[in-house]
Amino acid sequence: MPLSQRIETAMARALDLSQDGQAPLQLGAALHYATSPGGARIRPTILLSVAMSCGDDQPKLANAAAAALELIHCASLVHDDLPCFDDADVRRGKPSVHRAFSEPLAVLTGDSLIVLAFEVLSRTVPDNPDRAAQLLLSLAKRTGMPGGICAGQGWESEPKIDLGAYHRSKTAALFIAATEMGAISAGHAPEEWHDLGALIGEAFQVADDLRDALLDEKSLGKPVGQDDLHGRPNAVTQLGIKGALDRLSHILAGAIASIPSCPGEAALARMVSHQAEKIMPAVPAKYRV
Amino acid sequence: MPLSQRIETAMARALDLSQDGQAPLQLGAALHYATSPGGARIRPTILLSVAMSCGDDQPKLANAAAAALELIHCASLVHDDLPCFDDADVRRGKPSVHRAFSEPLAVLTGDSLIVLAFEVLSRTVPDNPDRAAQLLLSLAKRTGMPGGICAGQGWESEPKIDLGAYHRSKTAALFIAATEMGAISAGHAPEEWHDLGALIGEAFQVADDLRDALLDEKSLGKPVGQDDLHGRPNAVTQLGIKGALDRLSHILAGAIASIPSCPGEAALARMVSHQAEKIMPAVPAKYRV
Repeated sequence: MPLSQRIETAMARALDLSQDGQAPLQLGAALHYATSPGGARIRPTILLSVAMSCGDDQPKLANAAAAALELIHCASLVHDDLPCFDDADVRRGKPSVHRAFSEPLAVLTGDSLIVLAFEVLSRTVPDNPDRAAQLLLSLAKRTGMPGGICAGQGWESEPKIDLGAYHRSKTAALFIAATEMGAISAGHAPEEWHDLGALIGEAFQVADDLRDALLDEKSLGKPVGQDDLHGRPNAVTQLGIKGALDRLSHILAGAIASIPSCPGEAALARMVSHQAEKIMPAVPAKYRV
Repeated sequence: MPLSQRIETAMARALDLSQDGQAPLQLGAALHYATSPGGARIRPTILLSVAMSCGDDQPKLANAAAAALELIHCASLVHDDLPCFDDADVRRGKPSVHRAFSEPLAVLTGDSLIVLAFEVLSRTVPDNPDRAAQLLLSLAKRTGMPGGICAGQGWESEPKIDLGAYHRSKTAALFIAATEMGAISAGHAPEEWHDLGALIGEAFQVADDLRDALLDEKSLGKPVGQDDLHGRPNAVTQLGIKGALDRLSHILAGAIASIPSCPGEAALARMVSHQAEKIMPAVPAKYRV
């Protein structure tokens, strides 16, 4: 089964848990709206790619982990778009959840998706208590406080930002979760997969900064210039466009070099390069090297 | 150790997991602010009382369950107070989290507390996989969609409210979690403890409606008249004050009668009566029976 099909099937199964024919219809619809059609599904793709490189001996567990991680990512997008954060009208080329439904339903959608992510993993405990416990803790660590994406977003409310902690938690955390949880799903130690996730996260952040600077709202599918508007740290502001492009190439090379020795090493390197191409914005000729 | 001390110790331990000296300070402070000093801690008190009635053979597990449940309750208060819901300036006699900190930090505080609740339970998996899995699933079911407190709040966005589903999910869900999780912590079947939680939840809802109608903001510690203001269903509107008082007595008698036969049955009945006294508002003489 192609990875994308594994991911969509796992997501559909997870969403089914949130519906029973007696749930409030609007919130039920908002959960579907916020999770499908998905974006690039980059995090679960990385997770399953790492699991396959490690042997993927428990594919059901890996599928549950992939869905849980993507649910947390979707929840974070819904809450990040709220009026009190980015106040974004558009997400993935369609109205954001609070625009399409309402602000109360957007808050509840994010909350429900967080709970659903942990429910999906909790259901794997009886068959795989050891790996499930590690998966639950990895997801909690990379989502909440003190070092997950909640902490990352929290840094934006600080009078003085610790830039390292900000980037590690804001963007890299869920990529670290992707590589760690992929390894755990297949019974491998998560520690040696940490750096791959951290470097992909860093690359993603720089690519996002470049897109924010180079693209228009229609191509991006969400408002541009948000970093400038909110005074957030940004690789393009710090290094210029050419400097940021050089930095991105350097990080990606490091990511590929960091892949632990394993049967699927070459395939994984190809996946990272492929994901990198997908996140790279079209760069005007004058900046190309 | 008195119950209140067990609960506060468990809450303090849980909160410690969210701090590491490198977390964003404001969000860290907001997590503490939202969880202490606590309110009556009714849900964890019920949970531990049920666990003790069932033998409490794994007190550490029961403590973790109590903290997890209270964290979810605190998260729900923070999000319910947001401008897009109740827009409450005051909670537990002090400024609500979004007033004391900011709206972004209030959203993140709720999100972080939800994650922390599941982290606390996830840490119990290695020692008690069977019970931990049941606790995780009970908490997820009573918190998220389709039947938890998120669903309950979601009903308020529906054009037509299913009143039964609304009350079961909005208020009763976390009381059902309290009795179920107390039983699970001590290795008992949760099913026979469902009704006690549901009835305490119903009593609590009627008592809350009475307080909303009878008290002023200073005594209540939060804005009054919120149900009228938001057009929410309310026992006092439906039955009048005397009718609601009669209903409350009737439900509490049913709750005590529903307690399953167990060594701690009498003590548990006293606890339920005691909690009932605590939630009962001072009733003007003309309404007393």
